[in-house]
Amino acid sequence: MINIAILGFGNIGSGVAEVIEKNQAEIKNVLGDNLHVKYILDIRDIPGVVNDINIIVNDPDVKVICETMGGKEPAYTYTHLALEHGISVCSSNKELVDAYGVELSAIAREHNCSYLFEASVGGGIPVLRTIREAFGHEKVSRIAGILNGTCNYILTNMKAGKDFADALKEAQEKGFAERNPAADVEGHDTARKIAILASLVSGKKFSYEQVSCEGITNVTQQDIKDAEAQGMSIKLLGVYEAETQSVNVAPYLVPASSPLYGVNDVFNGIMVTGNMVDNVMFYGRGAGKLPTASAVVSDVIECAKTLGRNVKDGLEDLEPVASVNAPAKPDGQKFRVL
Amino acid sequence: MINIAILGFGNIGSGVAEVIEKNQAEIKNVLGDNLHVKYILDIRDIPGVVNDINIIVNDPDVKVICETMGGKEPAYTYTHLALEHGISVCSSNKELVDAYGVELSAIAREHNCSYLFEASVGGGIPVLRTIREAFGHEKVSRIAGILNGTCNYILTNMKAGKDFADALKEAQEKGFAERNPAADVEGHDTARKIAILASLVSGKKFSYEQVSCEGITNVTQQDIKDAEAQGMSIKLLGVYEAETQSVNVAPYLVPASSPLYGVNDVFNGIMVTGNMVDNVMFYGRGAGKLPTASAVVSDVIECAKTLGRNVKDGLEDLEPVASVNAPAKPDGQKFRVL
Repeated sequence: MINIAILGFGNIGSGVAEVIEKNQAEIKNVLGDNLHVKYILDIRDIPGVVNDINIIVNDPDVKVICETMGGKEPAYTYTHLALEHGISVCSSNKELVDAYGVELSAIAREHNCSYLFEASVGGGIPVLRTIREAFGHEKVSRIAGILNGTCNYILTNMKAGKDFADALKEAQEKGFAERNPAADVEGHDTARKIAILASLVSGKKFSYEQVSCEGITNVTQQDIKDAEAQGMSIKLLGVYEAETQSVNVAPYLVPASSPLYGVNDVFNGIMVTGNMVDNVMFYGRGAGKLPTASAVVSDVIECAKTLGRNVKDGLEDLEPVASVNAPAKPDGQKFRVL
Repeated sequence: MINIAILGFGNIGSGVAEVIEKNQAEIKNVLGDNLHVKYILDIRDIPGVVNDINIIVNDPDVKVICETMGGKEPAYTYTHLALEHGISVCSSNKELVDAYGVELSAIAREHNCSYLFEASVGGGIPVLRTIREAFGHEKVSRIAGILNGTCNYILTNMKAGKDFADALKEAQEKGFAERNPAADVEGHDTARKIAILASLVSGKKFSYEQVSCEGITNVTQQDIKDAEAQGMSIKLLGVYEAETQSVNVAPYLVPASSPLYGVNDVFNGIMVTGNMVDNVMFYGRGAGKLPTASAVVSDVIECAKTLGRNVKDGLEDLEPVASVNAPAKPDGQKFRVL
């Protein structure tokens, strides 16, 4: 039995407990052992939950920690502490990975444990593991991703006739968008995710703050109709291009021939272009309790299989990129074309 | 430097040599060592090529062998021999995996080496590794895949107005279809691939011979138009369903809301449904020299990273399934609906 702890018992954290409970037989089959949630930490006072991280990191039974708190603090301090105790950490926290991933990766290596973060990009879609392992030998020339389900839901509904304000309101009512939707609709969430993806394939650390970022708030009904008349859809994309070392987030015109064209509603799609494998796209639920928790659990299993060893996370020794380019818009056009 | 051998210097085999040559720097980065093609074996007399497998398996320098011969013999005998010598084998040969995969997997385990076959299904799409590793803890309820690029190319062209005979002829002229196209258009190729996928997720060995198989030769222009009028596309799918333990190959009506709807031309798309992660789809080139060779090389790297150890391939100890069901067609209908 391998004991784990969950930090942050919100949507994703409780999902991790649910995945482990419901799929215990499958986990045992693939891992050769059971996973047991020994501790749940939350800053709120919930019965059965601990508030003190020291109880967890000082318990030698705890082998893997799931950091599903989100935000920089206390997630950073707790992750740091766990890794220093040789406890692997599996994170869904894109903000933390973007800001401190390289440092945390180095601490994990130093202490013979791992820092993995599959769930921080693309929810349940296993894109980070695939990039790291299956495509490690590819020269990746481009990544283009629909990485924010809220924006994709709004744009899909705008294509069906709603205007931006109504589509946003509906997304909020259905719980897909926060009451303060800025992080989604201004593109910041997408920027964090494409910065992580770009870092994993480029060998340089791209940071969220460096990414040129345009959201969907200026996309109009007329823009959508004009795109449709040209056989295209407007999608909010995060795009990395190796040749120009550019990373940007913006609404793009996506032609019907692209596999990203048909990625609708809350789904995400991430297209990776390698020099040998050509275009490969991964499609799935980029958010949501159980899909995201499933990705966390896949990392937990990886860490549990490799106790006492460091698993490469792709951020090893990355130097920050000096500056990030944004591809120019075509003259006089409102949108770039994918 | 890790020495490898390539068995069969046709399209895929020469592609493996090309991937290793062109992406040597990336391989070194991800593996920490170089790959070197020490031997190429072919049954034809080509300068620089060996004809005797014993030269290869008796050379202790050779650590990994790529089996890109296709067909059952001599691929089976050579693979058997290599694994008995403790040399890992990476295969693109779906016929062999279907017929002897369970046996070869056991021999690999016994001799502390590995038998991997990513390239046998979905060409460059890393779907087997993903199912095995990232989704090992999921209860997979369904896999539905467009697994044969030739059929998909023909159906895409029929949707654009060509009839079956013309679309097939064009596919043959472009080199996408064999002169004898039966294995593709009758669905046998798809059947082998869905049988492998079903085996990996079900815990039972499904065999190609057991799969109910209907090809695309009876699909008419009128069928395509009728489907379009209902907002659907006709796609040749291989489908596994856990609940009914059914595996079949047939043309299906695919609604526009499915991510498989937009998978056109020679591309493949494989949708996997897990109880936690929900629908995930993988899209890419399911055939072709370099994409398929890239998948072989990803397996070579995995084997080279784990020399002296067995990597789980997903076929471990699978018992043959007694009988395979095919889902019933809706009453009076020519096609099932996905």
